[in-house]
Amino acid sequence: MNNQYGNNLTLSVFGGSHDDEIGMHLGGFPAGLAVDTDALLALMARRAPGSTSLGTPRRERDIPIFLSGISNGVTDGGEITAIIKNENRRSSDYSFVYDTPRPGHADFAALVKHGGQIDLRGGGKFSGRLTAPLCIAGGLCLQYLKEKGIEIGAHILSIGDEKDRYFDPIAAENRLFTALKKRPLAVIDEAAGERMRAVIERARAEGDSVGGVAECMIAGLPIGLGEHMFDGAEGRFASILFSIPAVKGVEFGDGFGIATRRGSDANDAFYTDGVNVKTRTNHCGGILGGMTNGMPVLFRVAFKPTPSIAKEQQTVSLSRMENTILSIGGRHDPCILPRAIPVVESAAAIAVTDLLLDQ
Amino acid sequence: MNNQYGNNLTLSVFGGSHDDEIGMHLGGFPAGLAVDTDALLALMARRAPGSTSLGTPRRERDIPIFLSGISNGVTDGGEITAIIKNENRRSSDYSFVYDTPRPGHADFAALVKHGGQIDLRGGGKFSGRLTAPLCIAGGLCLQYLKEKGIEIGAHILSIGDEKDRYFDPIAAENRLFTALKKRPLAVIDEAAGERMRAVIERARAEGDSVGGVAECMIAGLPIGLGEHMFDGAEGRFASILFSIPAVKGVEFGDGFGIATRRGSDANDAFYTDGVNVKTRTNHCGGILGGMTNGMPVLFRVAFKPTPSIAKEQQTVSLSRMENTILSIGGRHDPCILPRAIPVVESAAAIAVTDLLLDQ
Amino acid sequence: MNNQYGNNLTLSVFGGSHDDEIGMHLGGFPAGLAVDTDALLALMARRAPGSTSLGTPRRERDIPIFLSGISNGVTDGGEITAIIKNENRRSSDYSFVYDTPRPGHADFAALVKHGGQIDLRGGGKFSGRLTAPLCIAGGLCLQYLKEKGIEIGAHILSIGDEKDRYFDPIAAENRLFTALKKRPLAVIDEAAGERMRAVIERARAEGDSVGGVAECMIAGLPIGLGEHMFDGAEGRFASILFSIPAVKGVEFGDGFGIATRRGSDANDAFYTDGVNVKTRTNHCGGILGGMTNGMPVLFRVAFKPTPSIAKEQQTVSLSRMENTILSIGGRHDPCILPRAIPVVESAAAIAVTDLLLDQ
Amino acid sequence: MNNQYGNNLTLSVFGGSHDDEIGMHLGGFPAGLAVDTDALLALMARRAPGSTSLGTPRRERDIPIFLSGISNGVTDGGEITAIIKNENRRSSDYSFVYDTPRPGHADFAALVKHGGQIDLRGGGKFSGRLTAPLCIAGGLCLQYLKEKGIEIGAHILSIGDEKDRYFDPIAAENRLFTALKKRPLAVIDEAAGERMRAVIERARAEGDSVGGVAECMIAGLPIGLGEHMFDGAEGRFASILFSIPAVKGVEFGDGFGIATRRGSDANDAFYTDGVNVKTRTNHCGGILGGMTNGMPVLFRVAFKPTPSIAKEQQTVSLSRMENTILSIGGRHDPCILPRAIPVVESAAAIAVTDLLLDQ
Repeated sequence: MNNQYGNNLTLSVFGGSHDDEIGMHLGGFPAGLAVDTDALLALMARRAPGSTSLGTPRRERDIPIFLSGISNGVTDGGEITAIIKNENRRSSDYSFVYDTPRPGHADFAALVKHGGQIDLRGGGKFSGRLTAPLCIAGGLCLQYLKEKGIEIGAHILSIGDEKDRYFDPIAAENRLFTALKKRPLAVIDEAAGERMRAVIERARAEGDSVGGVAECMIAGLPIGLGEHMFDGAEGRFASILFSIPAVKGVEFGDGFGIATRRGSDANDAFYTDGVNVKTRTNHCGGILGGMTNGMPVLFRVAFKPTPSIAKEQQTVSLSRMENTILSIGGRHDPCILPRAIPVVESAAAIAVTDLLLDQ
Repeated sequence: MNNQYGNNLTLSVFGGSHDDEIGMHLGGFPAGLAVDTDALLALMARRAPGSTSLGTPRRERDIPIFLSGISNGVTDGGEITAIIKNENRRSSDYSFVYDTPRPGHADFAALVKHGGQIDLRGGGKFSGRLTAPLCIAGGLCLQYLKEKGIEIGAHILSIGDEKDRYFDPIAAENRLFTALKKRPLAVIDEAAGERMRAVIERARAEGDSVGGVAECMIAGLPIGLGEHMFDGAEGRFASILFSIPAVKGVEFGDGFGIATRRGSDANDAFYTDGVNVKTRTNHCGGILGGMTNGMPVLFRVAFKPTPSIAKEQQTVSLSRMENTILSIGGRHDPCILPRAIPVVESAAAIAVTDLLLDQ
Repeated sequence: MNNQYGNNLTLSVFGGSHDDEIGMHLGGFPAGLAVDTDALLALMARRAPGSTSLGTPRRERDIPIFLSGISNGVTDGGEITAIIKNENRRSSDYSFVYDTPRPGHADFAALVKHGGQIDLRGGGKFSGRLTAPLCIAGGLCLQYLKEKGIEIGAHILSIGDEKDRYFDPIAAENRLFTALKKRPLAVIDEAAGERMRAVIERARAEGDSVGGVAECMIAGLPIGLGEHMFDGAEGRFASILFSIPAVKGVEFGDGFGIATRRGSDANDAFYTDGVNVKTRTNHCGGILGGMTNGMPVLFRVAFKPTPSIAKEQQTVSLSRMENTILSIGGRHDPCILPRAIPVVESAAAIAVTDLLLDQ
Repeated sequence: MNNQYGNNLTLSVFGGSHDDEIGMHLGGFPAGLAVDTDALLALMARRAPGSTSLGTPRRERDIPIFLSGISNGVTDGGEITAIIKNENRRSSDYSFVYDTPRPGHADFAALVKHGGQIDLRGGGKFSGRLTAPLCIAGGLCLQYLKEKGIEIGAHILSIGDEKDRYFDPIAAENRLFTALKKRPLAVIDEAAGERMRAVIERARAEGDSVGGVAECMIAGLPIGLGEHMFDGAEGRFASILFSIPAVKGVEFGDGFGIATRRGSDANDAFYTDGVNVKTRTNHCGGILGGMTNGMPVLFRVAFKPTPSIAKEQQTVSLSRMENTILSIGGRHDPCILPRAIPVVESAAAIAVTDLLLDQ
């Protein structure tokens, strides 16, 4: 069980929510990238607790400290190790989970699996907090890709029933990507953003939470990244996307929608302007036969509602083997989407970097 | 680029649609399984071309020939190598794809990637035919799991807009699994099956094709299979499911539907009957924190319509760099779903076996 | 337990000595090599039983049959699968090993490990016969390397106390490599070869066997193959060399001899002819810091005497738990060195190809 | 290029000699080991610079700082990350190596490989200093193995021409192992140790260095660890042993000496005392067919003389492409053997732990 990602990269993420540090260890990253610290910190800040008024009031500064792999600000080809200090922990909040597992959390399965011997404070290693070191690796990859003309953007496509507009599936919307990264809520249609805000606030007021969907686009990819079958691009994206806590679905291009189409309406017809071969549609999401086809890669990721809610829930007291009621206190996001966007971008960037390193 | 699946198993699939043989090589499979050849052949037959009146008239017998790893009918702990002879090929059908890539196929990306030097007859290594060796591995895994009380069933949830009923998410429907495997069309509601049949026939009559969704359930799993993050169960299922050609989406439990729910309505509340801890709902699809939680695992897979259609499509003559029209002859399934069901079961079985071997 | 070799290649070898087939499965091998079948068969013939008058009278033709990965005689970038039919087996010879394990063989450890449930006929998967598929992979790699100007030669440095002369450590003796491959006994000094022959014949006449040392040189390597520590060249060579049955020692350059030297006498001083940087000695065997340094790579491999001997040996009847006497019949090489030379070349070629593919 | 060790463990070592930190990252280590910090520090101290009067006067305290994987002093099943602060560096000592590569060092190959862009201060990542983090991993493994009744000892078998006595190959000399760990020079025969001391002092006085051989024994192993061919025990030991800088040879049991024997004299005959099956000799070094056979594992490792010597050596000025003379200042061990012994024990322990985790 190595818990690593990558065919060429070897990424592992370590520590738990309430350890002194969490961190990441990344082998195989190319030498020669001059790390833009400001850009990295900006990415981390978008994911950090307290980054939006919609999230948890728990604040972490989330400053990555590099222990190896970066010399004089430049990646040196060695394994990159980075840590983040965990601050602002309140471990006492979590003693109850050992007896009354939280619905929607890993608690029950983890307790059974480990015979009760596992650190579940703050969610332990199952916590969404582990996406912070994922963003360190992702931040480096985003910078590496940008130098190669590959840009990645993501936005909140929906929260509850409120929807943003879709990315234009055949356009490389780099300018939009930049704009989205600066908005407090990463939505294209700011009016939709206002409605989403209201949905979140309503859920919070009711001690509840709400889920949503993120959409991500990758522009500037060369043709032919990925291989058939087990090394296919879709599987390699999906594998890292499903490692983000709370993700329950991943689809490319038209995704589940393509299942209701006819072939004549789902195939992306080719045309040429005399120089290049293109398609006018992108139902396939930029991937055919496991390979990128030159169109932007486009996928969507479904996030479940934050499972920690103040509302009363039914659970079981394991010590007494009796049904009981649980209301979860503490500081929790009523919706994970606003902070999940940079995590999706990071996961995408790691997958693309690994795909590029096939060659 | 090893094109292998598995943390514990090492599965590779080799050959192309129009080679003499295709096959699979499987390391790490446990010793001691007495292979039930009839069951294996029955699985292969469900996937084979010509297995239903709805599919391609191209017939392949698809008999696996084991070259290693099975002694006296029992797996011996060594690498298992098996091949299938490719019969009934008509390579002449495919000469055109080098100049006029088929929309919805890997042709264009593969030609660019390999500078034109790649065998695309019958789809080459990108062909759905490669799912036959996947079923050999899957068939062995299904038998291995059955001995451990783990059963896997799948059905066609939808074709076009016609829908079967869902699996009951909290029931281990083993008897239903057995029944489904015997039906010509793997549907729970046979009336829905009739309507699906009509949808497929209509598409075929119009020289078109149609997509659909498969649903799969795994019953009898122990609690705690899978790990957090990169070794999470969802990612390991998704990774092999996306290696099946034509798959564009994978979701667990409520999947994309969970994104519109409130946490109070998406968490699966625990209760006890005094002995066991269970949930009355299964929104999470049997996986929390990357681990199985004791409920059946439940996921859905979106398949796009078969890209090979007789209807005219726009494409480009690469030699002349001109727009042109293509109509694909040959023998193609108007809908891949009927034959995809045993492939989904196989992929699931391989993933579960690999998860079990973590321990 | 994947039993594979390679960071970039994925080589596995399957089957056992008395199965119908043995074979190899090789992923990651570059596309585009036009396979020289004659050269491959010549390599296989040098290793095959009956290849010299000094070996076992058991004859195998050892013709590789390629099942995948080679199209129209050219490697196509897919996984390469090849088998060899096992002919001329006499399984009855081996029934005794289950009760009276042969000294110097894997029998006892294998029986304990597998609770008696393991095929040991002909040595099963522990047999030197498994080096035949290793030579298939090695033969492909040797051809791939030759196209890049990298040549590999090996000879018998010693058998018993009789010694051949050493390779000149700073010369790329390509012409000698070619000559050695044609000699019935791969020795530089043919007079030494005659003495070795006598040593082998004497051992055979006495129902005994004898060991020896092989020396191998790799010429034409670029500078800088290999990495520090775990990906170092020495470890990657050693790892595959120790997978050859009967190998008990591996040393590079001066090897164990360097341990008695002073640094002033063990370092290879640099000099320049104004254009290149070279060394006049090669104590390091062409590897420093895990990397090739531009000098020929030079290593030696110690082989133990064939453990199967006709002479009486003490062993134990496991069923009666009593001491007993064993005399091994059957057809065995009194010395493995003559047939081991192409295996050492093959192992070296596989390791070098894997090192080259780092880049 | 992941630069990792292990089939089951994933060990990587990071940083360079003159970075702020060096460290190790270890995945797959079992949960539940209560770490004995004193024992770990004692192991580190035996390897540390300045540990003996015979070594470099450069002193490093080498205190491991654990960042993850250990909770309340017990391994928690997560990835273990540990760092050591580099103190007492004098980087100015190393500026010359970029123009005048040191004979016997990685400098020249590394400069060519990386186009001059590589940190070689203190040897950079090629430094023997990287064996310090290897000892952290090894120290944890040694403790893990001790709990299972497996003990590892090593001693200096020779320095120059002076020899210690061999381990008794069929005895588990646990008491001797403990004694050796406490001696300033790890030798069995202390008179031989005195002579070795003199050899080292003489080399130092002459501005020279000297090599030697280490012998290592592993007692208490179960029968059957390791697999045939690529997962064989010998190859897995050799792979990590050759990752120790300065190692040029590895042999098991009689090693190169077995090559001059007859089979009748090299096979270890079995006998029984009515209860167990044993051998009276251990020519094979406790490994047959890639598997441990129940006897102690025994191997020897050849170390070259420290390449950094004060004596004048010939090298080349790369900028002027002219022959020149180099005399290396700085603080260097005239013989690496005294400090290499705990490194050999550590490497052995890591390999054994990985072998045990096969099961």
